[in-house]
This record gives sequence, C-alpha cells and structure tokens, in this order.
Amino acid sequence: MPPTITAFANSPDRGRGHARDMRVRWALEEVGQPYDVRLVSFEAMKQPGHLALHPFGQIPTFEDGDLALFETGAIVLHIAEHHDGLLPAGTNARARAIAWMFAALNTLEPPIVELGMAMLLERDKSWYDERLTVLNHRVRVRLGELSVRLGDADWLDGAFSAGDLLMVTVLRRLNASHILGDYPTLSSYVARGEARPAFRRAFEAQLTVFTAASKHAP
Amino acid sequence: MPPTITAFANSPDRGRGHARDMRVRWALEEVGQPYDVRLVSFEAMKQPGHLALHPFGQIPTFEDGDLALFETGAIVLHIAEHHDGLLPAGTNARARAIAWMFAALNTLEPPIVELGMAMLLERDKSWYDERLTVLNHRVRVRLGELSVRLGDADWLDGAFSAGDLLMVTVLRRLNASHILGDYPTLSSYVARGEARPAFRRAFEAQLTVFTAASKHAP
Repeated sequence: MPPTITAFANSPDRGRGHARDMRVRWALEEVGQPYDVRLVSFEAMKQPGHLALHPFGQIPTFEDGDLALFETGAIVLHIAEHHDGLLPAGTNARARAIAWMFAALNTLEPPIVELGMAMLLERDKSWYDERLTVLNHRVRVRLGELSVRLGDADWLDGAFSAGDLLMVTVLRRLNASHILGDYPTLSSYVARGEARPAFRRAFEAQLTVFTAASKHAP
Repeated sequence: MPPTITAFANSPDRGRGHARDMRVRWALEEVGQPYDVRLVSFEAMKQPGHLALHPFGQIPTFEDGDLALFETGAIVLHIAEHHDGLLPAGTNARARAIAWMFAALNTLEPPIVELGMAMLLERDKSWYDERLTVLNHRVRVRLGELSVRLGDADWLDGAFSAGDLLMVTVLRRLNASHILGDYPTLSSYVARGEARPAFRRAFEAQLTVFTAASKHAP
C-alpha cells in the first residue's frame, strides 16, 4: 500500500501550487515514491474524522501503515529520512540541510504569509498602505539576507535538499507580488526548483485536481 | 570541548526566558550536556563574523566541533537525535514528536508572535483595536484546537519530548497577555514544563546573564 496524503477538494489557490500538499507531493516525486490522495472539503477538515489526523484541521496529512503525520515540515523530513535524495549523507551536512528546512518555515514563511494575508484581507482598510510598507520591509530584509547567503550557488548548502524544497515553496508564495523580481539571485533559485522534473510532476498532479473540481462546480 | 551557543549580551526580554537561546539551553539541560555561552551584542549580530554562523543575524547559534547550526528547531532536533531523553525510541512515535516540533514553530508561533508584535509596536495606531481583535481570534482558534488535542494528558504524545519543549516555550510568549488563563488545560501544561528541573536550570542561567549585564549598564 502506498502512503496516502490529503489535499483540498477545491484549492483556494486555484491550482497554482501554493497549497501545502504541493510540498509533500514534490518530496514524494523527488524520491520516486508513489502515493494516493484523498481529497477533503473545507467542511470535512473540521470534522472529528480529519481532526483525529490533523489537530488543527488543515491539509496535508500523511498516512503510511500505522503512522499518521501532520505538518508539512515533519512529513517532508520523514520522507527524506526514509528515502535517498533529499538529505546529504554526512552527519553535519544533514543537520545543516534540516536547519534550512526550519529556516524556510520559521524565519521566511511567517513574514511572507503575513504580507500575503494583508494583501488579501486588508486592502480596503484605512491602514493598508502604512501596514504594507512595514510588512514589505520585513520580507525584504529576510530576502536580502537569504540572497547574500545563497550567492552564486545553485542550492543553499551543496546539493539540492529538503531545505531547498521547502524554501522554494515558501518563496513561490511571493509570485503574486513583484518583490522577488528585485532579488534576481532568488528568482533564479526558485526557477531552478520549478524546473526540476519532480516539481513539474507534483505541480501537474495538484493542478489536475483543481481543474477536475472546477468542471464539476455549479 | 562542550558545544558553544550564542545568546543576547543584553536580552530585550529582560531575562524572562523568551529569547530563543532558552530553548537550546533547556534542551541541553534535559539531556545533561554541559555547554559554553558566547554573548553577542545587537551590533555584532549583524557583522560578517556572526552572519557566517547565522545568515539572518540572530541568536542562538550552536557550534560543536566542525558543526555550526542555526534555527532553534534544528538545534533542538540535533541535540535530541544525539542524546537520550527528548525523542521516543519507536520510529512512529519519534516522527510524531517531530511533528509537534514543527507545529509549535510553524502553526502556533507565527500568530502568537504577530499578536505580540502588534501589542508592542501598534498600540498607538488608529487601527490597534480592530487589528487586536483579529489577531486575538487567530491565536484563540489555535489554542482551542491545541487544548482539545492535549485533553487531560500531561504531554502532547506520550512522554515529554522535544515537541513539548518547543510548544511550552512558544506558549510562554503569551505570558504578557492574559489569554492563556482562558485555557486552563494549556496553563497547566506550561506550568508542568516550567516545573521541570532542566527548565529551571536553563531559566536561571539566562536570567543570570541579564542580571549581570544590567549591573554593568550605565
């Protein structure tokens, strides 16, 4: 039995690959592990059945035999630990790749999500311009630091790793703004990630779900 | 040579244990690993020497022989993987404990930090009351879900783990507000964490740094 992940029955990002199942799909594609997908509605996500798998009522989840996991960082790390291709072999290099996983999710993603939410929800508020300036600055500080560290390397620390996988998906959340264009080093980095065959397969798979759901929409 | 961590020379939290070195100190105390501390000023944190260790110019860092790490999640996980006491032995239980580490840092901490920052920086803004309502709601939704999952258990999944360690430090950030008092299950959980001898030793160690720095302040 292949592992089963959950994903939005009807993704609010309209198939642009920003929903977090994309990260798990990409990791599974990188290591060549087939998987099943169970689609869940927004209503079902908050019901006891799904909450038993995910205490915060979100997607994705990951079920493999007796194991049920939530949190994309943990799922991607679990996949990386049980297959070759997403973590380097050396102990120290492995620890550093994991540091980039946490950096993506705890240092880069929070200000990027905050900016995205403000652009989505606060556009008609009196304070929008003032807040946007602050939020943009917070994101740009982190992008500047990341850009300097990456330099002219292809990936953050040697070969492509689970750290790069998560960082690319986090930076892709900025696609709707034009910020990333001011950091050519990072734009190229994201493009390198998106060009990987495993990324393309994962992207097409999640897009197919959205396209099929749209056809059946009233 | 014991490992060396970095910490604020003069912590902005005035020794209340909210700076992120607290998490690493606590983990090291739990596993009985002695450590050295190198204090860094705000200026030094943004200089090339420190940026080589931490690309985002923050504390803590962790140096052990040839290995240099940043990101508290990665450092705590590294400590947990190389010593007994912070991760369960079973493969599945271990993966679930790591899921709680990511949940603490990627699901709970971002809205809690956002609320804390608004309370610190936006108090005199015209929008403060309206924003505070939104931010409080986001935090309360997560606390409610976490409270339900914890139930009457002592810890999130069996014995105390690195997941509980990070979750308790994240929830402690709410100490300045009175929100946690509305979730007695979580207040007791945090109190259980703070009562652990390893927590007490780590707390005293970081408080001593702050007290000594204050004595020498002009």
